[in-house]
Amino acid sequence: MRLEVFPTVEAARPDHLAGRAVVAVDVLRATTTVVTALAHGARGVWPAGDPAAAEVLAAGLEPGSFLKGGERGSFRLPGYDLGNSPLEYVPALVAGKWLVLTTTNGTGTIRLASAGRLALAAALVNGRAVGAWVAKTGLEVSILCAGTRGEFSLDDVLCAGQVVDAVVETVDGDVDSSDLARAARQLYLANRDDLARALRDTHHGRRLCQLGFTADLEHAARADLYQVVPVYAGGVVTAGAPLSPPP
Amino acid sequence: MRLEVFPTVEAARPDHLAGRAVVAVDVLRATTTVVTALAHGARGVWPAGDPAAAEVLAAGLEPGSFLKGGERGSFRLPGYDLGNSPLEYVPALVAGKWLVLTTTNGTGTIRLASAGRLALAAALVNGRAVGAWVAKTGLEVSILCAGTRGEFSLDDVLCAGQVVDAVVETVDGDVDSSDLARAARQLYLANRDDLARALRDTHHGRRLCQLGFTADLEHAARADLYQVVPVYAGGVVTAGAPLSPPP
Repeated sequence: MRLEVFPTVEAARPDHLAGRAVVAVDVLRATTTVVTALAHGARGVWPAGDPAAAEVLAAGLEPGSFLKGGERGSFRLPGYDLGNSPLEYVPALVAGKWLVLTTTNGTGTIRLASAGRLALAAALVNGRAVGAWVAKTGLEVSILCAGTRGEFSLDDVLCAGQVVDAVVETVDGDVDSSDLARAARQLYLANRDDLARALRDTHHGRRLCQLGFTADLEHAARADLYQVVPVYAGGVVTAGAPLSPPP
Repeated sequence: MRLEVFPTVEAARPDHLAGRAVVAVDVLRATTTVVTALAHGARGVWPAGDPAAAEVLAAGLEPGSFLKGGERGSFRLPGYDLGNSPLEYVPALVAGKWLVLTTTNGTGTIRLASAGRLALAAALVNGRAVGAWVAKTGLEVSILCAGTRGEFSLDDVLCAGQVVDAVVETVDGDVDSSDLARAARQLYLANRDDLARALRDTHHGRRLCQLGFTADLEHAARADLYQVVPVYAGGVVTAGAPLSPPP
């Protein structure tokens, strides 16, 4: 099977995604937030490209059934219930609720993943579960990193390497990994014993720590905390069935 | 100082290069060929974007003073004196000669580097010399990897990591490395004990081995074989003065 990693949304052409299983990754922080919310019982997460699109999505949901979350410049949008800190998405708030989420890079990355046959979301907190699950679909896999302002972001590439590692360990047969897939796996294996430090050393991680979001990084670094496999279909990300991957 | 790595020519915007020292890297094989030719006494290498541009450059040189080298699809162009195998550029052929060179990715990458204040060329065979030299210029540094067909190519990123390592060890003061610069350095340090194997494992390296160019890979993997610092200025790459970096 073919396994590729794209360092940024800008680097992925549509023909890189068509027909594939596409895994969207934005470790700091959108996909970490999505995974955490689903693990905490949210019904589903509707990713919106921008606040105007979030209003349209919210208008289609029953009042009281949803919360609005998201950020610009790392901080909660005005009038929103929640920001983009995964730690805000506690069960007491999100269980049984829809979430409408808009973030600078991550929600757009999830939406782009729908150019594939199957779209998923992964973060370090569930990367191994996603990798093991997607390996069993029989599809070629493209891992789509959000990046940061169009540039390679090591936090995302570490998670891509975690997913690659899980795929390679699960697939029965040869995996034809792209150079970046190989490199990402090497980087993940070299850093997995202290992912919190690795995230703090990234450009985006340093910025978030300066802004006071250090606890978010610590949470985002807790590899394989959750087993949820988020699938994006019909406009909403829901917890897939981790115990029943496609044949 | 600021230190960035761009995984492909396509990923580098002009504002990433302006005012900087820009190091062009195409390990398999153009910059390895350029460095080897200069180390073997070539007067200079004129990089041409395509065969038509090579003809224009050749027309400006005295007959008998130059050789034409280059490839398309990895093989020597019809009517050319040399291909793109660094091992062809032996002293008996190239010493005292100009070379006009056109390759699929590499010569265009060198030409793009001239968008910076200072343009250089590096490969694994001279990466440490280039890194140590450029660190003393006081300029911010952008390392511009050729990539392969617009994608991340690990052979180039390993060399970028070698240059980063030399810069970090040479600079007196803090280096603000981009995420890819940090990752490239980690990858270089993890692979430097067997760079030939690492090159053979890359996508481009596997292809070149299948085509019969295994000896080129072995040569390209000989880290720090040469001390030459190739500088591209006025349309030609010449051996800089490694013993007298700018103050």
